[in-house]
Amino acid sequence: MAKPKVLILIGSDSDLPVVEGAVKVLKEAGVGVKLDISSAHRNPEKTVEYARTARAGGYEVIIAAAGLAAHLPGVIASHTTLPVIGIPMGGGALNGVDAVLSILQMPKGVPVATVGVGAAQNAAILALQILSIKYVEVAGKLEEMKAELRRENDEKSARLKDYSKD
Amino acid sequence: MAKPKVLILIGSDSDLPVVEGAVKVLKEAGVGVKLDISSAHRNPEKTVEYARTARAGGYEVIIAAAGLAAHLPGVIASHTTLPVIGIPMGGGALNGVDAVLSILQMPKGVPVATVGVGAAQNAAILALQILSIKYVEVAGKLEEMKAELRRENDEKSARLKDYSKD
Amino acid sequence: MAKPKVLILIGSDSDLPVVEGAVKVLKEAGVGVKLDISSAHRNPEKTVEYARTARAGGYEVIIAAAGLAAHLPGVIASHTTLPVIGIPMGGGALNGVDAVLSILQMPKGVPVATVGVGAAQNAAILALQILSIKYVEVAGKLEEMKAELRRENDEKSARLKDYSKD
Amino acid sequence: MAKPKVLILIGSDSDLPVVEGAVKVLKEAGVGVKLDISSAHRNPEKTVEYARTARAGGYEVIIAAAGLAAHLPGVIASHTTLPVIGIPMGGGALNGVDAVLSILQMPKGVPVATVGVGAAQNAAILALQILSIKYVEVAGKLEEMKAELRRENDEKSARLKDYSKD
Amino acid sequence: MAKPKVLILIGSDSDLPVVEGAVKVLKEAGVGVKLDISSAHRNPEKTVEYARTARAGGYEVIIAAAGLAAHLPGVIASHTTLPVIGIPMGGGALNGVDAVLSILQMPKGVPVATVGVGAAQNAAILALQILSIKYVEVAGKLEEMKAELRRENDEKSARLKDYSKD
Amino acid sequence: MAKPKVLILIGSDSDLPVVEGAVKVLKEAGVGVKLDISSAHRNPEKTVEYARTARAGGYEVIIAAAGLAAHLPGVIASHTTLPVIGIPMGGGALNGVDAVLSILQMPKGVPVATVGVGAAQNAAILALQILSIKYVEVAGKLEEMKAELRRENDEKSARLKDYSKD
Amino acid sequence: MAKPKVLILIGSDSDLPVVEGAVKVLKEAGVGVKLDISSAHRNPEKTVEYARTARAGGYEVIIAAAGLAAHLPGVIASHTTLPVIGIPMGGGALNGVDAVLSILQMPKGVPVATVGVGAAQNAAILALQILSIKYVEVAGKLEEMKAELRRENDEKSARLKDYSKD
Amino acid sequence: MAKPKVLILIGSDSDLPVVEGAVKVLKEAGVGVKLDISSAHRNPEKTVEYARTARAGGYEVIIAAAGLAAHLPGVIASHTTLPVIGIPMGGGALNGVDAVLSILQMPKGVPVATVGVGAAQNAAILALQILSIKYVEVAGKLEEMKAELRRENDEKSARLKDYSKD
Repeated sequence: MAKPKVLILIGSDSDLPVVEGAVKVLKEAGVGVKLDISSAHRNPEKTVEYARTARAGGYEVIIAAAGLAAHLPGVIASHTTLPVIGIPMGGGALNGVDAVLSILQMPKGVPVATVGVGAAQNAAILALQILSIKYVEVAGKLEEMKAELRRENDEKSARLKDYSKD
Repeated sequence: MAKPKVLILIGSDSDLPVVEGAVKVLKEAGVGVKLDISSAHRNPEKTVEYARTARAGGYEVIIAAAGLAAHLPGVIASHTTLPVIGIPMGGGALNGVDAVLSILQMPKGVPVATVGVGAAQNAAILALQILSIKYVEVAGKLEEMKAELRRENDEKSARLKDYSKD
Repeated sequence: MAKPKVLILIGSDSDLPVVEGAVKVLKEAGVGVKLDISSAHRNPEKTVEYARTARAGGYEVIIAAAGLAAHLPGVIASHTTLPVIGIPMGGGALNGVDAVLSILQMPKGVPVATVGVGAAQNAAILALQILSIKYVEVAGKLEEMKAELRRENDEKSARLKDYSKD
Repeated sequence: MAKPKVLILIGSDSDLPVVEGAVKVLKEAGVGVKLDISSAHRNPEKTVEYARTARAGGYEVIIAAAGLAAHLPGVIASHTTLPVIGIPMGGGALNGVDAVLSILQMPKGVPVATVGVGAAQNAAILALQILSIKYVEVAGKLEEMKAELRRENDEKSARLKDYSKD
Repeated sequence: MAKPKVLILIGSDSDLPVVEGAVKVLKEAGVGVKLDISSAHRNPEKTVEYARTARAGGYEVIIAAAGLAAHLPGVIASHTTLPVIGIPMGGGALNGVDAVLSILQMPKGVPVATVGVGAAQNAAILALQILSIKYVEVAGKLEEMKAELRRENDEKSARLKDYSKD
Repeated sequence: MAKPKVLILIGSDSDLPVVEGAVKVLKEAGVGVKLDISSAHRNPEKTVEYARTARAGGYEVIIAAAGLAAHLPGVIASHTTLPVIGIPMGGGALNGVDAVLSILQMPKGVPVATVGVGAAQNAAILALQILSIKYVEVAGKLEEMKAELRRENDEKSARLKDYSKD
Repeated sequence: MAKPKVLILIGSDSDLPVVEGAVKVLKEAGVGVKLDISSAHRNPEKTVEYARTARAGGYEVIIAAAGLAAHLPGVIASHTTLPVIGIPMGGGALNGVDAVLSILQMPKGVPVATVGVGAAQNAAILALQILSIKYVEVAGKLEEMKAELRRENDEKSARLKDYSKD
Repeated sequence: MAKPKVLILIGSDSDLPVVEGAVKVLKEAGVGVKLDISSAHRNPEKTVEYARTARAGGYEVIIAAAGLAAHLPGVIASHTTLPVIGIPMGGGALNGVDAVLSILQMPKGVPVATVGVGAAQNAAILALQILSIKYVEVAGKLEEMKAELRRENDEKSARLKDYSKD
């Protein structure tokens, strides 16, 4: 079976350090990743081209990160029927509230799956959850990750001072 | 091939009129729908049970709608590795801002795919987009819907008064 | 000298009643107006086409109105070097705050001239102010409008009860 | 009479430094404290187990601290009839506004007693106030603390420069 | 054993219809209720007198509801060591956000247990939860109420159309 | 001794019904009132003239009400050294939050005494408080008003159902 | 004629550095100043005593600074008929928005003259403006300050690079 | 043909570093620039004089930057029929939200073309777009800038690690 592939687009290279967290999660899960900078406003043709050809190119999920009046995820969603995950980037005077609303409040017919402010890792996990409906090995990987979350929680718990013994 | 199935949970029957918009979109696309009321706070065991057994029960996407401190989508997401779409319900003193933040800002490891305030139809379309990576007929249906959106836009445009002729 | 022309695009016909206020102001000032519905998300190609050809088609200002995650003005601005005026539409659960931020907070290089929530008449007056740097008769019309504002204010003042005489 | 006991749960070890302020207040008042990390999303079963068994285990108040989409206090409250105090943690892009709304706006039937952003000491004092209806020595301790607050205020006042003598 | 007693103070008679929801819950649980209007700003002496004498008068919880710059709960809390539950009232130009912040963000040393906007019933249930640490029959009543919440949820669920049978 | 005089300016006649509440309070206290419409933006010269000549004309306090980007109080304050009270008017898409911030956040050197959203009566009472430092009869009137507030509160209290007798 | 006197109360010594800006402005204008720490919540009796006796003690304006759920100005205003100026202190997780609303949105009958976040100097100037209606030398001082503001502005202007000469 | 000229006014020299970004963009495009400090509140006469004489003095666009209760752009707009671009300055306790609303929400008849928080370069580009309807060389310059934006985007894209090759 073909390897699942995710396309990640960012509006600016300043978003790169955050988005690399998503790349890491996806690659560890064995998912192919294509990452590119393609601003909805500064390079709209390239952005549209990516969106239009993504499904035919074998991509199954698109992740788009943008800040301020964050149009990138919505512009992509208007040119594809693939699921588009939007990451509102924080920073800026309004701490990402502008980006949240610009991504979340899409009009009827053109949804974007929005995750939390700067939540690149969660965007990647959501992409894996989507892929998991088709790729059983991704579902397995997600179960492992969920168990790992619990394990970390338990380890931190075990290291806590036991105040009840004082 | 098995028919795709979506599980829709709502926290209260007051959310029903909004969520029926999602049911309609999904059924028109030939997707099986199970809709139930299962509050994260008033019936947590039932909610957890739904989340835990959803994948084994053949569901591939879960849509959860809730208002106020809208925990339902997040509670479900903590018990499944399926993609969970959260619909923040408007209404209430804070117009749904509380629900948006309670759904969107999930912690690392447990994402919820959030759509706009009260955007049940968009939740359904996002579910279809997710299913489309596996079910080619759903992808086809989405292309039709996209064409229909454009057609409606064009028809409305054609009915406009032509001010440039005045 | 050619008659100045303004292009007005709206994302949805629900914006029509508000935007007709702008049409009226512009036509009374002798400006040609082309009004069309062209959603950034539901009909992106048409929107881009309008933006790309506007200057060559003789338009000198573009007014775009949109609500929610209001991308229309920004998408247009990414495809033209004409001044673009954005009207954030109120309504919706967030009362237009989403539209304000989606229009105002454009990234470096691609500004949109944003006016107040639902302020279609002000958008038209701003368009006239822009045209007035080239068309002396528009500048004259604006002076008349400014005088008229003062006159209305004075008339309302004259009709007030004089409490100081009690 | 048995010593009163308070259970404190936090969603993440990053909340530890803040919550230790609550532990200190409680222990100084002679109240037994059990502190553990138990994320509502990453370890939901453990969280539910804590909530379900808390009353039988002799706890009389539960304090839960969480940030972002802070579900921990609400999830606990859905599984116990003990009073649950929620501390919305600051930090994050939205400075704790997300946590406030996720804790405060609980649905009918399942309240959480919310304190201010990061207000761990106040959460502890509120726990003491609750315990004081049953434990007379806790009521006495609270009177001492109230007197101490006034004393500190007076001492600070006494150290102020007397500008009226200039 | 003495019957538990709760004192409810409201800042204005316009808060009465909302707060009667709390009275009803408390009386059904067999709790004595004293309800009075006592504005923190318009009748501060009476308010302080209530706060100061509440514990000696046999009250064990105080509920205070107020809107706008809602100082009532905090003023009471500054004069008692009993637990004070604050209900931020909605209405007004800012929909209760002013009341939430005026109640929630109390300074170090003087907490108020804040519930959601207009959440009078939840304030009453929180009062019962507090009383339940001392009065076993109140704990029993709360278990019944929790079971009733689940039952209602189940009944609503049973009445839903079964879309999966279509 | 001369009768105290207050100048009230409003930006639009739509503010009239609210501001008449202030006129009533002032006149009942025996204060002379001059009320006029003078928009900061539509009739700036008149506004400046009012501000500049107010002290010489015997006015001792200026009240200015405005909505939206409410510049009127600030523009007046920049042209006088009299105390200026600003009333942010509600209404509009942003419910008066715009007006609050446009009046409250004046730069260093040019304060405006801001009252609550639409709080015309409070603006009048604040004006009386200011006048009371000079006019002893106004101070007396304020004491009466304060007593009346308490009396009303007590009367409402007396009419309440006594739930504690049930 | 007696020297005018202003009472400044702060809720916490952390507000001292900001409020000293107000002391400086007042003393330079020849106004007597009494500054004290008196928390509305930690030392309510002292606060009430200050408010009740302020007029008889010769004070003509009270300035009160507080942060978070900033009740100090409102509590004072409920016990005096003198004008009370409230300074909402910034800092804290919500940057002073909580303090603004807790001071600004006072109920009918009990206004507080609110200035901008942390605007201690403006509070002092507003106090001078109030005093100026009675003390002609304060009015004169304010005219000097206004001229000084303009002079500073002009000097800064004169030092600017003249880009128009490039 | 005369060289186009833009007038830039700022309320305070603290705005200078941000606004110099606008000066640079305009001068590189061959536009004449006059920059001055002229506070709407501290030097209102000078500000009005600038606004009134701007068109006669050959200016075709005015850019005004201000923070807090940012009245400068609106005050200018009330005295001219030239297009006025407002830059809301960030900083301050409210991060520029106050400035955005004070500039954006202008009343009917007196628009200000608002750009994003601190977006001085975008203000300059918007000024160029306005000038481009009259000066063909400015239109050419804008096309170059748009191409340069795309080129930068492409270069950054070219430097990215190609994750798809891993």
